[in-house]
Amino acid sequence: MTDIALADLPLRDDLRGRTPYGAPQLNVPIRLNTNENSYPVPDEVTAAMADALGAQLRDLNRYPDRDAVALRADLARYLSARHGRHLAAAQVWAANGSNEVLQQLLQAFGGAGRTALGFTPAYSMHPLIALATGTGWLDGPRAADFGIDTDAAVALIEQRRPEVVFVCSPNNPTGTAVSLETLDAIAAAAPGMVVVDEAYAEFARPGTPTALELLDRYPRLVVTRTMSKAFALAGARVGYLAAAPAVVDALQLVRLPYHLSALTQAVARAALAHSDALLATVDALKTERDRIVTELTAMGLRVAASDANFVLFGGFAGNDQKRVWQALLDDGVLVRDVGLPGWLRVSAGTPVETDAFLTALRSVHPAGAGAPSG
Amino acid sequence: MTDIALADLPLRDDLRGRTPYGAPQLNVPIRLNTNENSYPVPDEVTAAMADALGAQLRDLNRYPDRDAVALRADLARYLSARHGRHLAAAQVWAANGSNEVLQQLLQAFGGAGRTALGFTPAYSMHPLIALATGTGWLDGPRAADFGIDTDAAVALIEQRRPEVVFVCSPNNPTGTAVSLETLDAIAAAAPGMVVVDEAYAEFARPGTPTALELLDRYPRLVVTRTMSKAFALAGARVGYLAAAPAVVDALQLVRLPYHLSALTQAVARAALAHSDALLATVDALKTERDRIVTELTAMGLRVAASDANFVLFGGFAGNDQKRVWQALLDDGVLVRDVGLPGWLRVSAGTPVETDAFLTALRSVHPAGAGAPSG
Repeated sequence: MTDIALADLPLRDDLRGRTPYGAPQLNVPIRLNTNENSYPVPDEVTAAMADALGAQLRDLNRYPDRDAVALRADLARYLSARHGRHLAAAQVWAANGSNEVLQQLLQAFGGAGRTALGFTPAYSMHPLIALATGTGWLDGPRAADFGIDTDAAVALIEQRRPEVVFVCSPNNPTGTAVSLETLDAIAAAAPGMVVVDEAYAEFARPGTPTALELLDRYPRLVVTRTMSKAFALAGARVGYLAAAPAVVDALQLVRLPYHLSALTQAVARAALAHSDALLATVDALKTERDRIVTELTAMGLRVAASDANFVLFGGFAGNDQKRVWQALLDDGVLVRDVGLPGWLRVSAGTPVETDAFLTALRSVHPAGAGAPSG
Repeated sequence: MTDIALADLPLRDDLRGRTPYGAPQLNVPIRLNTNENSYPVPDEVTAAMADALGAQLRDLNRYPDRDAVALRADLARYLSARHGRHLAAAQVWAANGSNEVLQQLLQAFGGAGRTALGFTPAYSMHPLIALATGTGWLDGPRAADFGIDTDAAVALIEQRRPEVVFVCSPNNPTGTAVSLETLDAIAAAAPGMVVVDEAYAEFARPGTPTALELLDRYPRLVVTRTMSKAFALAGARVGYLAAAPAVVDALQLVRLPYHLSALTQAVARAALAHSDALLATVDALKTERDRIVTELTAMGLRVAASDANFVLFGGFAGNDQKRVWQALLDDGVLVRDVGLPGWLRVSAGTPVETDAFLTALRSVHPAGAGAPSG
């Protein structure tokens, strides 16, 4: 076997010393670390998926539809029905997870000499995809409650004029949704593209806005979504966006031809044809989310308001979240240390998973302990 | 619907005025334009695929194995068995088509301020992926027979010192394989990475070398492969590479997490478990390839020697290949105008497809017409 060290390869300078992104993939009983949907795909849907996939197998010798026209039409119908405003297939684009959608956006609108801005802490892949595409990155601030201060955001955008602005709403890892007024002000101020990452939109509490409402007014606005969370399809890798048709035209210039396999297109379409069955778990997950917020608050922990399928909690002293993370793992409960000192993130799963998490956490951090401590 | 033109979006300057890559996806009886394998997946293999996919469906709510460990082990076994030298899973990496493998290579080793060299005409995605990743592109020459002149290649590499050198062998669109001596000289001269794109390796005539033979000697050498052609899996999008383990470590820094879906991993593994059944079509395709070479030569056309599942033919005057392309299409036969004045590319398919192609071509270009003409 050829023997050479990574450091001796002619790697790009800005990648040297980096480590790969990724939560530990550990085989523990309770996995609440990657905001997966804890409910497996129901039998009626797996049956439909099996039929749809089976119909593709004989012809896998042929390339898939390069433009994924039927899938994009189905996604447009889903968004249109859910949000009560018409979206055309030409306004929708799909790729292998929203990560690939975001990468294509930065390939088209970012790159060398350009800068993307995000309000951190937010989805940690935003700066990593910026790095991989050679786009500069600018960290914008969040308030103490993890919200975005509108005036500060607008001032920063006007001062630094980033080519791409990311807004994650509901925000990962904090769960925080952004108001329509703030989105509006950011879109009005931004000189380039504004990408609102709404991976967790389906879990939002009633009345929470979606940036889809602003699409008609801001032609440089992009809303990204995923089927990994509410649709329980993380394993199938399907992300998508809604935007002006010209944005889709732009992505066509950088997308890899035939990027979306015939199987991916088929399974996503089968899922969308059964969206009611798949999304039936969303209410149950929201109930657990709210229960976690209530219980952890009662335990005296700090808890961020959440419109997603996870909860950021903490107030642990210093870096003591590392000890709590390990103690929970020792009890068979895997949560996420997102790199925020004093905080951890837990996904809302089934009631049984919530029970296990709460029991484990209480043994680490006894209820009624008063002020958060290490 | 939001109304904005592509030209009014803040697209990267180097993308302005470009058009998306892609052969026409036309629904005609005889499709010989994208070097697909004309044989559908046999029933015994579709049955195994259906089982493998079915086993994934219930758990699609979970993210797939981020490192695709089992698939990479299977691919390593395939390459090891075929080429009689041991390759470890750590030396293999897989992605959504070899296009994504190539993109990851350029993200890791190319980028702004760096240059990739290819010997054109070659696979047209090489310069396009360079563009999308912000990597500069340098066209190297080929000889009149579409071979690579070793001394000229080495001199160019030593003069321009590109960070990445692409060698496509067997070369698309010409079918030309590169000798081991030339590969050796290029690998010895290159200051950075050398990527040998062997998408069509399984179709090579006996005695044709593979760059796998050089992997032990050149730690910056990468061999890319695909399951789209010989394995008849274009619709499933599976490409892979063999290289030093450190190269795989480098790609882990730029790959999108969970880039390869659970379904893609499962279907590829099922295919590899039935590689004998799938690769049984290769000999038949090579027979048709050789028949096309023989027949077109007899018709007085110029024909490039081919180690792939396609044939480049021509000698048409000026841009007259456009007229021939259209005339063939009018007869229901779709071939490829690869943008080489005077040349067309035709995929080797089934005997029936070859017959249809030859019949159509004879009506456009009567046999015995002597010297090629327009």
